[in-house]
Amino acid sequence: MKEKPLILVTNDDGITAPGIRALVEVMREIGQVVVVAPDKPQSGQGHALTLNEPLRLEKRDVFDGIEAYSCSGTPVDCVKLAKNVVLKGKKIDLCVSGVNHGSNASINIIYSGTVSAAMEASFEGINSIGFSSLAYSHDADMEPAKHFIRPIADHVLKHGLTNCKLLNVNIPDLPTAKIQGMKVCRQAIAKWSEEYDIREDPMGKKYYWLTGKFVNFDKGTDTDVWALENGFVSIVPSQPDLTAFNAIDELKPLEETTFANKLG
Amino acid sequence: MKEKPLILVTNDDGITAPGIRALVEVMREIGQVVVVAPDKPQSGQGHALTLNEPLRLEKRDVFDGIEAYSCSGTPVDCVKLAKNVVLKGKKIDLCVSGVNHGSNASINIIYSGTVSAAMEASFEGINSIGFSSLAYSHDADMEPAKHFIRPIADHVLKHGLTNCKLLNVNIPDLPTAKIQGMKVCRQAIAKWSEEYDIREDPMGKKYYWLTGKFVNFDKGTDTDVWALENGFVSIVPSQPDLTAFNAIDELKPLEETTFANKLG
Repeated sequence: MKEKPLILVTNDDGITAPGIRALVEVMREIGQVVVVAPDKPQSGQGHALTLNEPLRLEKRDVFDGIEAYSCSGTPVDCVKLAKNVVLKGKKIDLCVSGVNHGSNASINIIYSGTVSAAMEASFEGINSIGFSSLAYSHDADMEPAKHFIRPIADHVLKHGLTNCKLLNVNIPDLPTAKIQGMKVCRQAIAKWSEEYDIREDPMGKKYYWLTGKFVNFDKGTDTDVWALENGFVSIVPSQPDLTAFNAIDELKPLEETTFANKLG
Repeated sequence: MKEKPLILVTNDDGITAPGIRALVEVMREIGQVVVVAPDKPQSGQGHALTLNEPLRLEKRDVFDGIEAYSCSGTPVDCVKLAKNVVLKGKKIDLCVSGVNHGSNASINIIYSGTVSAAMEASFEGINSIGFSSLAYSHDADMEPAKHFIRPIADHVLKHGLTNCKLLNVNIPDLPTAKIQGMKVCRQAIAKWSEEYDIREDPMGKKYYWLTGKFVNFDKGTDTDVWALENGFVSIVPSQPDLTAFNAIDELKPLEETTFANKLG
């Protein structure tokens, strides 16, 4: 009989966040779970890694009977340490990250520590899933997310992923009974429109708080933002090649200008 | 007569790095330059942004006669502050980032603060270029990079970018005369293979330093890694949609399993 699959769990909200607890609760039903997660919140860390400082790794007794470690670095550092130190030489069957408290749909995939951690595992050929809930608050109900995490993880463990190694999954902020189902989507074209809240410290020096508003430009009905707005769980198969293939021909003339434009 | 183009310059090695000085020297010949760059090195920050702390912005007299600011945040924070505070309401004609000390070819685009800063500007519809030199050392010769920065920036200012808004440019570590020219490429499929250097502090507790080796799996002769290995400057037109379009059909069956896999 085949052993239980080895499942690496991480997140970006930190090892004590409710979202990762919900994820561990589902994963322990289907595999052997090891957790390596940040020791503090790391939202918005994108694919950042720690180059100029050493990392710390601490064994933690946070999830009953589950091997777990906190790491002083970013979500991506957690996955690199998990693969190369904690689980060195072992085959990781699945990496799941989250459940993030807040949306990682559309352009948020670029800023997201949660999805970047899963993406880092995907670079190693590991089937990986980032889970995020649009229920932002710390005490949000994780039951709707848990309801959909299980079938998605089961599907990936049973069928594998052939044409990509990463899924970006977002769950709407609705009670389970109100969720319409799951949609496989493309990433919507959108961006953040920022304002800075400018304040003065007691010494009279300015400081700036980032605030922003998500702006969706995409009218498509095949996008993750559309799915979420219409009550569906969104599943975007994702990959790390950023090449704009359709721009290559447009730029080819640049190859001819090299030596005609010497400086000085 | 048209005014000089407004050019935003940033980087990830910090405002005092030689690479950004080289970039400013070229840009001041062709436009009105404003610099907003990190106050300290921010390599490997990817698309990280600062959510949990306020940011500081300081006017700096670093480049003779050029308006310049250092920012306490990440490269992406620098671009957001530049657009929304420093240059609020002004049209930025070009954003250039770098010159990075070290390669950002292939998968490094995901980890790179340099290219992520340019990418952030591209989200705003600004034509943007990340420049990186494979000459890693602090006192590397920046003349070969400068030689190619000018024609690429001139091309983008003159012709614009239609099918993407971001170029990832890498310059080989060769004297100018040995560089073969420029190639418009796709991003090579590669990854980092990590090892951690594990040490003990004076209290006997372990700490971990990241070390890694770049591994190219891609045999193509149309990639950035191939171009650089063959003495060419690589130019990869880039965009932020990570959707794995060819994996959508494979995952469609997941849409049918929703209500057949309820938990509990």
